[in-house]
Amino acid sequence: MQLVAEHIDIGTRSPTVLLNESDAAELGVHALERVQLRWGERTAIGIVELTDELVSEGTLGVTRRLGHIEGDVEVSVAPQPDSVYYIRKKLDDIELEADELSQIVRDVYDERLADVELGAYVSATYTNGLSMEETMHLTESMADVGETVAWEEPVIADKHSIGGVAGNRVTPILVPIVAAAGLKIPKTSSRAVTSAAGTADAMEVLCDVAFSVAEIRDIVGKTGGCLVWGGAVNLSPVDDRIIRAETPLSIDPKGQLIASVLSKKKSAGSTNVVVDIPYGEGANVESLAKARELAKDFNRVGDHLGMAVECAITNGGAPVGRGVGPVLEAREVLATLAGGGPNDLRVKAIRLADLLFESVGVDADAAEILDSGQAEETFREILAAQNGDPDVEAADLSPGRHTVAVRADRDGVVTHVNNRLVNEVARRAGAPRDPGAGLELHRRVGEMAASGETLFTVHAESEDKLADAKALTERVETVRVRHPDEALVERV
Amino acid sequence: MQLVAEHIDIGTRSPTVLLNESDAAELGVHALERVQLRWGERTAIGIVELTDELVSEGTLGVTRRLGHIEGDVEVSVAPQPDSVYYIRKKLDDIELEADELSQIVRDVYDERLADVELGAYVSATYTNGLSMEETMHLTESMADVGETVAWEEPVIADKHSIGGVAGNRVTPILVPIVAAAGLKIPKTSSRAVTSAAGTADAMEVLCDVAFSVAEIRDIVGKTGGCLVWGGAVNLSPVDDRIIRAETPLSIDPKGQLIASVLSKKKSAGSTNVVVDIPYGEGANVESLAKARELAKDFNRVGDHLGMAVECAITNGGAPVGRGVGPVLEAREVLATLAGGGPNDLRVKAIRLADLLFESVGVDADAAEILDSGQAEETFREILAAQNGDPDVEAADLSPGRHTVAVRADRDGVVTHVNNRLVNEVARRAGAPRDPGAGLELHRRVGEMAASGETLFTVHAESEDKLADAKALTERVETVRVRHPDEALVERV
Repeated sequence: MQLVAEHIDIGTRSPTVLLNESDAAELGVHALERVQLRWGERTAIGIVELTDELVSEGTLGVTRRLGHIEGDVEVSVAPQPDSVYYIRKKLDDIELEADELSQIVRDVYDERLADVELGAYVSATYTNGLSMEETMHLTESMADVGETVAWEEPVIADKHSIGGVAGNRVTPILVPIVAAAGLKIPKTSSRAVTSAAGTADAMEVLCDVAFSVAEIRDIVGKTGGCLVWGGAVNLSPVDDRIIRAETPLSIDPKGQLIASVLSKKKSAGSTNVVVDIPYGEGANVESLAKARELAKDFNRVGDHLGMAVECAITNGGAPVGRGVGPVLEAREVLATLAGGGPNDLRVKAIRLADLLFESVGVDADAAEILDSGQAEETFREILAAQNGDPDVEAADLSPGRHTVAVRADRDGVVTHVNNRLVNEVARRAGAPRDPGAGLELHRRVGEMAASGETLFTVHAESEDKLADAKALTERVETVRVRHPDEALVERV
Repeated sequence: MQLVAEHIDIGTRSPTVLLNESDAAELGVHALERVQLRWGERTAIGIVELTDELVSEGTLGVTRRLGHIEGDVEVSVAPQPDSVYYIRKKLDDIELEADELSQIVRDVYDERLADVELGAYVSATYTNGLSMEETMHLTESMADVGETVAWEEPVIADKHSIGGVAGNRVTPILVPIVAAAGLKIPKTSSRAVTSAAGTADAMEVLCDVAFSVAEIRDIVGKTGGCLVWGGAVNLSPVDDRIIRAETPLSIDPKGQLIASVLSKKKSAGSTNVVVDIPYGEGANVESLAKARELAKDFNRVGDHLGMAVECAITNGGAPVGRGVGPVLEAREVLATLAGGGPNDLRVKAIRLADLLFESVGVDADAAEILDSGQAEETFREILAAQNGDPDVEAADLSPGRHTVAVRADRDGVVTHVNNRLVNEVARRAGAPRDPGAGLELHRRVGEMAASGETLFTVHAESEDKLADAKALTERVETVRVRHPDEALVERV
């Protein structure tokens, strides 16, 4: 059916087209079904919504995502994508072939899969798992789509944390240490999805984070490193869509996780990668055995792709550092680069940087680079290159002025600080959208607390959000204080 | 956030609301996220789409599904529904409790689940299965939502086929036989989803099929039975949504199937149900062992709900009757009621009706009722009550005038007629939307065919669609003809 495109200003996550009811009936398509669009030499897939009034017969309403479509468009019913058969096969717990995984990745890339089908894909890989072979094929397929970056340097260093630990702002300390040692480290980071702040959110307190690949080359050329938001470059379009399907379900299957991380590193041109795998109560990985298994799989897939992947299994049972939330974390980064800061954050950054040096075979000492001020100098060069103020000081950064103190209800020792609850309290307080929102932890695991002493302070930029966060702290045990002789954690 | 509702004419499958970008940013919601809407004493869930132009700041664009919303609306971020945790639990292959299944059903009913989550739900129940306990709880929960019908009569007969067999139009013959015996049989049927015609599509050739519960009572009061479309009554809103998620994936997990069928029967007030379970090559159930297992589970869940459920395992390896498609099937129904028609269709209707008589304990003989003309008389009363022509004759019905004959390419015996391909060819030819489209089978399993003889004729209402169907018949083996001495089915 031949229709004429008309632009309709609606922003959806899917490539929506609006069809007049009678055109849709003629075509035989219903709401949310797919149509194939062909205009000139180009084609795209549209997801149908129906209207009587917004577009008239003979007209195709194209929404923002399809705003590049103009003029006459040939509209036909799109056949069901082949990858749906492969998703069904995986639901039947049958191992997928390389070309089947590659077809799934291409169909996700071309947005041929509806949300129901994407939900089935992430469910199938979660519940039935991906074999080592499948993980390797998936990683290669994902690296093959989207932009890729090629570098002239033979060594490109990189770092990734599988997350789940509040406050864990190691990256902005590690990147300038590594760059100051003369290595290139073009680091892209994510924004928070379910946490209080991602590295990109914390860096945005200090400088811009959205840059094109060409701009990233320029920043890295000048300073040796960068600290930018990965979402602004199209290195992993498939990964973004898969994560959007996994997030509401809070699932992150191992094979998919490895494929997501390493395909992105491959596309970014990285040669040596250190992967931080925090484990512990409440972390994404809860046991040492699982952490080791994941690390081995990362190593194997890395080998297969020709990347040197070093894994660091770290303590993930409690937050790293004392500040949680964009401003509070940025402040600790500045303090640590200046030679102070929380010791666990400092030591972790040094240790991971040394692992990278060892992997590359560079004779450098991370502690020395940090203590000599070279890392701070490089960090400030990166800030300047990313349009930030290179002379910013920790004291310039103010967390939200509305605060509430959460106090110990007994004398005892802090036996656990719950990462998920810390993140949730910070998010209720407004993080990461309100950069000043977050938590300051005054007592950490192993420290004594007397009844009535402040365990942590919640910061918010508005009274309302502070009240939300406070209400949550009253219902849950974010910081667990127990008498040293107490045997029970919980009575169920 | 307080917004004012404005109606926007867009029809979507979900309850979409349009928010101005800046209101959405203020609320902190993104495209496809859920918002809670509260106006007056009422609440609803909306799925967000964004716009700059279609609605201005301070305005909430409500689309068709939410057209009942007027005036001031309090809009807030909707919390993630609890049932997402239970879906995740099922993905982890942990048995769900009664209240967890009931929460999932309620959230599907209230449209709180996004498509990704629905996809995960059907995937989890498919790949990890539902236990007998889970199936019972799910069935009860599904029967508890939506409309229910109560009857004064102590016995309400009903029938269901789990489908997959082309042509299988037993229902319009069985219903008048049962009604003529003095039983009440208020039968609701579906339209085709992936087949050439559902019972509702075939009946629509002869009369109206969309009636309210009150109208159904009236029709059944007059005639003892009805043959209406289930989609017009709200007996199984949850089932409809689950099926919409299962269809693109071509999955129909056993426990979900039983819950869907029996919850609908329970809501309809049925007391005695016969379930047709066709099995065989290419049917929904491929082995006798699986058919028996399914039948036993139907019996058990029926017992649990206090319904007498009789299962008939039937031959499902090939189409029943010779006509496939709305008009061609309606024609055979009329012929069979008049005492002619294909023998397999006649015998199957009689056998299933006798099973119902036995279940209820009624002393009636289906063959006698059919041969005496009583069934035809009742059928014509039902047609009249459903605004059809009670004097319609088979000869009045014309299949599509564009035809192509598909011929045998060798001498031999028909060893298989592929249900899925028969349906697919009929659908390419335009069925069920074009009622005259479909297939006439001239040779059936066990019959001889000489090279060049017509195996089946494809009918279509348009030349284009006929060409589509013809192209498919040239690529696939819809009817398999083999020499009696040929040993190989396929060489792989």
